[in-house]
Amino acid sequence: MSKLTDLPKRILIGRALRSDKLGETLLPKRIALPVFASDPLSSVAYAPGEVLLVLSIAGVSAYHFSPWIAVAVVVLMFTVVASYRQNVRAYPSGGGDYEVATTNLGPKAGLTVASALLVDYVLTVAVSISSGVENLGSAIPFVIEHKTFCAIGAIVLLTVMNLRGVKESGKLFAVPTYLFVAGIFLMILWGAFRGLILGDTMHAPTSDFEIKPEHQGLAGFALVFLLLRAFSSGCAALTGVEAISNGVPAFRKPKSRNAATTLALMGLLAVTMFCGIIGLALATDVKMAENPAVDLIRDGVPVGAGFTQDPVIAQVAEAVFGHGSFLFMVLAAATALVLFLAANTAYNGFPLLGSILAQDRYLPRQLHTRGDRLAFSNGIVLLAGAAILLVWIYGADSTHLIQLYIVGVFVSFTLSQTGMVRHWNRLLADERDRARRRHMVRSRAINAFGAFFCGVVLVIVLATKFTHGAWVALLGMVIFYGTMTAIRKHYDRVADEIAADETPADESVRPSRVHAIVLVSKLHRPTLRALAYAQLIRADQLEALSISVDPDETKALREDWERRAINVPLKILDSPYREVTRPVIEYVKGLRRQSPRDVVSVYIPEYVVGHWYEHLLHNQSALRLKGRLLFTPGVMVTSVPYQLQSSEAAKKRARKRADWSAPGSVRRGPVERGHKGPNRKG
Amino acid sequence: MSKLTDLPKRILIGRALRSDKLGETLLPKRIALPVFASDPLSSVAYAPGEVLLVLSIAGVSAYHFSPWIAVAVVVLMFTVVASYRQNVRAYPSGGGDYEVATTNLGPKAGLTVASALLVDYVLTVAVSISSGVENLGSAIPFVIEHKTFCAIGAIVLLTVMNLRGVKESGKLFAVPTYLFVAGIFLMILWGAFRGLILGDTMHAPTSDFEIKPEHQGLAGFALVFLLLRAFSSGCAALTGVEAISNGVPAFRKPKSRNAATTLALMGLLAVTMFCGIIGLALATDVKMAENPAVDLIRDGVPVGAGFTQDPVIAQVAEAVFGHGSFLFMVLAAATALVLFLAANTAYNGFPLLGSILAQDRYLPRQLHTRGDRLAFSNGIVLLAGAAILLVWIYGADSTHLIQLYIVGVFVSFTLSQTGMVRHWNRLLADERDRARRRHMVRSRAINAFGAFFCGVVLVIVLATKFTHGAWVALLGMVIFYGTMTAIRKHYDRVADEIAADETPADESVRPSRVHAIVLVSKLHRPTLRALAYAQLIRADQLEALSISVDPDETKALREDWERRAINVPLKILDSPYREVTRPVIEYVKGLRRQSPRDVVSVYIPEYVVGHWYEHLLHNQSALRLKGRLLFTPGVMVTSVPYQLQSSEAAKKRARKRADWSAPGSVRRGPVERGHKGPNRKG
Repeated sequence: MSKLTDLPKRILIGRALRSDKLGETLLPKRIALPVFASDPLSSVAYAPGEVLLVLSIAGVSAYHFSPWIAVAVVVLMFTVVASYRQNVRAYPSGGGDYEVATTNLGPKAGLTVASALLVDYVLTVAVSISSGVENLGSAIPFVIEHKTFCAIGAIVLLTVMNLRGVKESGKLFAVPTYLFVAGIFLMILWGAFRGLILGDTMHAPTSDFEIKPEHQGLAGFALVFLLLRAFSSGCAALTGVEAISNGVPAFRKPKSRNAATTLALMGLLAVTMFCGIIGLALATDVKMAENPAVDLIRDGVPVGAGFTQDPVIAQVAEAVFGHGSFLFMVLAAATALVLFLAANTAYNGFPLLGSILAQDRYLPRQLHTRGDRLAFSNGIVLLAGAAILLVWIYGADSTHLIQLYIVGVFVSFTLSQTGMVRHWNRLLADERDRARRRHMVRSRAINAFGAFFCGVVLVIVLATKFTHGAWVALLGMVIFYGTMTAIRKHYDRVADEIAADETPADESVRPSRVHAIVLVSKLHRPTLRALAYAQLIRADQLEALSISVDPDETKALREDWERRAINVPLKILDSPYREVTRPVIEYVKGLRRQSPRDVVSVYIPEYVVGHWYEHLLHNQSALRLKGRLLFTPGVMVTSVPYQLQSSEAAKKRARKRADWSAPGSVRRGPVERGHKGPNRKG
Repeated sequence: MSKLTDLPKRILIGRALRSDKLGETLLPKRIALPVFASDPLSSVAYAPGEVLLVLSIAGVSAYHFSPWIAVAVVVLMFTVVASYRQNVRAYPSGGGDYEVATTNLGPKAGLTVASALLVDYVLTVAVSISSGVENLGSAIPFVIEHKTFCAIGAIVLLTVMNLRGVKESGKLFAVPTYLFVAGIFLMILWGAFRGLILGDTMHAPTSDFEIKPEHQGLAGFALVFLLLRAFSSGCAALTGVEAISNGVPAFRKPKSRNAATTLALMGLLAVTMFCGIIGLALATDVKMAENPAVDLIRDGVPVGAGFTQDPVIAQVAEAVFGHGSFLFMVLAAATALVLFLAANTAYNGFPLLGSILAQDRYLPRQLHTRGDRLAFSNGIVLLAGAAILLVWIYGADSTHLIQLYIVGVFVSFTLSQTGMVRHWNRLLADERDRARRRHMVRSRAINAFGAFFCGVVLVIVLATKFTHGAWVALLGMVIFYGTMTAIRKHYDRVADEIAADETPADESVRPSRVHAIVLVSKLHRPTLRALAYAQLIRADQLEALSISVDPDETKALREDWERRAINVPLKILDSPYREVTRPVIEYVKGLRRQSPRDVVSVYIPEYVVGHWYEHLLHNQSALRLKGRLLFTPGVMVTSVPYQLQSSEAAKKRARKRADWSAPGSVRRGPVERGHKGPNRKG
C-alpha cells in the first residue's frame, strides 16, 4: 500500500539523494554562526522599515523617535541574548524553549510554547519569503510585479528541495550570510564615511516625498500607543534568536561555551546592523508609509497604487552605493538569499520539534523516528501549505504578515525565561557551594529580567497588534494546542486500555491450541510456498481452505491436490454469491465457537510486486480479508510473501529511501546516547 | 488501511443501505419489459428530432424524406430484434454480445465488443441525462437555462444513489416507463383523432418558423450522404436493444421464450412510437435546425442565441395537448424520468460487464466478486466521471453527444450477429435432425441478415459521423482495448511466473526450520498476546526482539521482562539513529545468511482501531516494517491483532458493508450454479 501513497510524491520529487550519514560533523563557531543566525540576522532586512512605517502614521516628524525605539530594541536584544546564554549553559543537551518550559512549568506551558513555535515556523517562511521577494524586487522589477506568484514559487522550490533531501553543509549557509553581513557593514561604513568625512548628502529615492500623516498631532496616550506599536514592529528583529538553544549538541566542544559565544556575537551583529540601517535611513531621508498609495505624496499628489515602496535596506543601499550599481545589486541579491535561507531554517526546525513532540505523544509516534522520511515529508507539506495560504491571503505583503509574527516568538521567550527562573530556584534549593550559588543567583536575575521584559513586550505586542492580525496567530496556536491535546489524550486512553495487569494471573484466557488454515485458490508457487511454510509451524491442526466460486476451478484444484499428493487436508467452502471474505470469516468464527480457547492462524499467500499499479491488480481480496480478520478475536493473520520479478525494482527503491537522511540534520548534531528530555517515560 | 481510503466515500455516500438478498426474485414479462426497455424506449425521445434536424440542412423541403427514413429505421429495428431473439434462444444463460463474440469469433473480437460496450455505457449516461434535461426544460425553463449544471447535478445524484446501493425493484422501473409509453400513445391517438377525425390543424410552436438551408438544392451524392446521415441519427432509436440478451437469467421460466417475447414487444412499441412522433411532427409543422440560432428564421430574422429549440416530443405534445396543459406537463416529466432511468441502466450494466471481464482477467480480479462494493464503487465513479466530462465538454447538448453514440452500439451488434452466424455453422456441422437443422438454417439466415445490415449501418455511421464526433468514441474504445490488453498480459506473465513445476521435485529449497521473532516495544497486553500466540506455534527457535531507541525505555522493558519471568529470550538491538525498520531487516537478513534453509517468522502485535484518524496514530511503523519485510525472501509476517474498544464501531460498519448488495442485481437474476462463460478456465 505504501507504494500507492508514495506515487504522487515520487513523481514530483524524484529519487531521494543519497546523503552522507550524520557523522561526527560538529560545527566550528565560524560555521555555526551562519547556520543558526541566518534567521535572526535576516530580520534586520525588514524590522527597521517596519519601525519607520508605523511612526509615519503620525507624520515624518515622528521619525525622530526612531533612535529611541532602536535603543529599546537593542536593550531587548541584549536582554534576550543574555537570557539565552543562560539557557545554553543550563541545557547543553539542546534544551529548546519547549523542553525548558515543559520541565520547569509543566506540560501545559510546554505545549503552549510548542504551539507558538509551530505557528512561528509557518510565519518565518511566509515573512522571510515575502521580504526576500520584496528585496529581490528592488533590483528586478519583474519580481515585484508578480509578487505573490514569485513568493509562492519560492516556497514551492524550497519545499521540493527539502523533500528531495538536499545535502546540507555549513558552507551553503556561510557564503550568503557572510556576504549579507559584509554588505550591510560596508554600506554602513561607506555611508558614514561619505556623510561624516566627505560631507556628501545622500538621497534615498523617497527623500523628496512627503508623508500625509494619518493622525495629525498625536499626543499623550495615542502617541505612546503608536510608539509602542513601532517598538512591537521593531521586535521582529529578535525572531530566531532562540534557534541556537536548540542546537547546542551540534557545536564543537566546549559546546555550551561555544554556543554562548556564538549567541553573543550574533546579538552584537544584529543590533549593529539594525541601528546602522535606522541611522542611514534617517540620514538619507527615507520615507516609508503604511499605505504608500495614499499617504506618500510626490510633488503634492499621492503616488497612487502603481507605486512600489522598496524595502528600507534597498532605499538606503541606493542612496549610499548609487542606483543600479554593482554593490547595490549584490546587496539586494545577498539580502534575498539570506531571507530564503532563513525560511529554510523553518523547514529544518519543524520536523525536529515534531519529533520531540511525538516522543511526548502529542503527535503521531512515528514522527519520533529520526529521518522517517514519510513523517518528515508530511510535516514539510503541512508547513509549506500553511505558508502558501498565508502568503496568498496577504498578497506576499511582509508588512501585513509581520503583524502576525511576533506574538508566537514572545510567548515562547516569556515562558522559556520564566521556566529558567524556576530552574535556578530548584537548583538553588539544593546548592550549598557559595561561588556556585552566586553564579546561579546572577543567572536567575538575568532570566528573571528577561522573563519580565519579554512578558511586557508580549503584552505590548498583543495590545498594539491584536486587531492588526495577531489574532490569526493566536487562533493558529489554539488549533495546534487543541489537536495535540486530543492526540495525547487518545494515546493515554489506549495506553490505559492495553496496560498489562500487574498480577501474572493475566493468563485466565491463555490459549491452548492452534488451528492453522492456509487459504488456497490455485496450486501455484505462492500457494505451495505458503503450504510448505505452514507445515513447518507444527500447529495442532492444519488444513487448507478454498472458497469455491467456480465449480470447474474447484474441481481442477481438487484434482491437482490429489495428483501432487499434498498431505494437508483440503477443505472447500461453497460461496454461491462468489463472495470470498464472508465464508472465511464465518468459518473462522465457527471454529472459535467450537473451541473458544483455540487460536486460529490464517496463512495468506501474497504477491509482492514492484509497481503501484500492479498493487491494484493483486492482493486486493487478500487485503480486504485481512482487514476483516483482524477484527475477529483469537486470530493471527500471516502473510506468506511471494516475490515476483518486478518486486526487485521496489526493493531497490525502498533501500534508497532507507538511506535518505533528513535535511536539518546539520543543526541537530549527532544523537546523544542517553540524552533524555522531559516526559520521556510518560 | 481500507478505513483510510473509504473515508471520502463514506462521508459522501453515508451508510450502506441494507437491501434484501438476491433471492429467487424472477421477473414476469410485464415487469421485465420496463426493467430492460427503459433504455431503448426512451431513445424515441431524441431519435425522431435528430432525423428532422439533419434533414433541415437541405431545407424544410427535405422533411418529406423523413417517412422513408422512418421506414428504414423500422426495418433495421425489426432486423435487430429478430436477430437478438435468436441470441436469447441460443444463450439462455444470458450471453451478452461480449460472450457471443468471444465464444464464436475469439478473444480479440470479444474485447472489441467489450470496449464498445464500455464506451456505450458512458454515452448512455451522457446522452440520456442531457436529453432528459432538455425535455424537463421544455416544461421548466430554469432547467434549460442551467442545462450543463442540471445535467451534471443529475449525474451526481444518480451516482450517489447507486453508490449507496438503492434497493431496486421492478416497480421503480414500471411506473415511469408505462407512464411514458401511455403518454406517447395517448398523444399519437389524440393527435390522429384531432387531425383526421376532427380536422383540426395543430401547430407546433415552431410551425410558422422558416429554416435557412445550409446547403440549398442538394442533389445526387450530397443528398444521399445527407439522407444516410439522417438515417444514422435515427438509428439512435436502437440503442439498448441488446440489453435483454444479457438479462435472460432474470426472466421467469420459460426464460428464453419470455425474453424473446419481451424483445418483440419492445421492438413493436419502439417503432410505433418512433413513427408516430415523426408523423405528428410533420403534421404539426415542427421545425428543427442544426444551428437554431442562425438557421431558424422567425418573421424574416434569425432567432438568435437566446432561443431554445425544444425537443420534438415536447413541441408535438404542445401542439396536441396545448401549451402548459396538464398532459403536456405529465408527458414532459415522464419523458425526463424514463431518460434518467435509461441512464441508470448504464450504472447497472457497467459493473456486470466489469465482473465478466474481470473473470477473463481483462480487469482486476477483484471485480469478479459479485457485490464487491469497492470494485463496484470504483466502476461507478469512473463511469460518472467520464459522463460528466463529456456532458461538460459538449454543454449537455444531446445532439452533439448523439454523434458519438451510435458507433459503439453497431460495433457490438455487428460482431455479435457475425458470431451468431458462426454459432449456427458450428451447430449445423453436428446436427443431423432435419427439423432442427431447418430451424437452425432459418436462425442463421436471420442472424446473417442482421450482421450484414448492422455492418452496413456501421459503415454508414462511421462515414457520415466520423468528423462529427464518432472519432471520440473510437478513441475511447481504443483506450479501453489497450488498457484491458495490458492488464491481461500482466496477469498472464504473472501466471507463468508462479506456475508450479509439474515435477514434485520442486522441493529443492524446501525450508527446514522456523526461527520465530516477536517484535516487542513495551510489555503491554498486545505484546503479551503476541508472545502467548507465538509460543503456541512450536517454532524451532523463538525469541523476542526489541529495538532500543531510548536506553531508559529499554531498561524498563528488560526489568519488566524479568519481573514477569517471561520464558522467551529477549534480544535487544541498538539503533543509534532511532530507526526501527533497518535494524530488524538487517537482523532477519543475518539470520537467513547464517542458515539459508530456515524460514523467519516475524510476529507483529497490531492495534485494531475503529476510526481512520486513529490509523494515523497507530501501526504506522509496523505497517512500514511489514512492507519492507515482505520484500525479504524466506520471511513470513504475522499480525497478531489486539482489538481496542473503538474497533467495535469499525466492526459494525464492516458487517454492514458486507451485507450490501449491488444495484443492478434485479437485472442479473440469481447466480446460475455451474453456469460457465467462455475462457473461464483460461
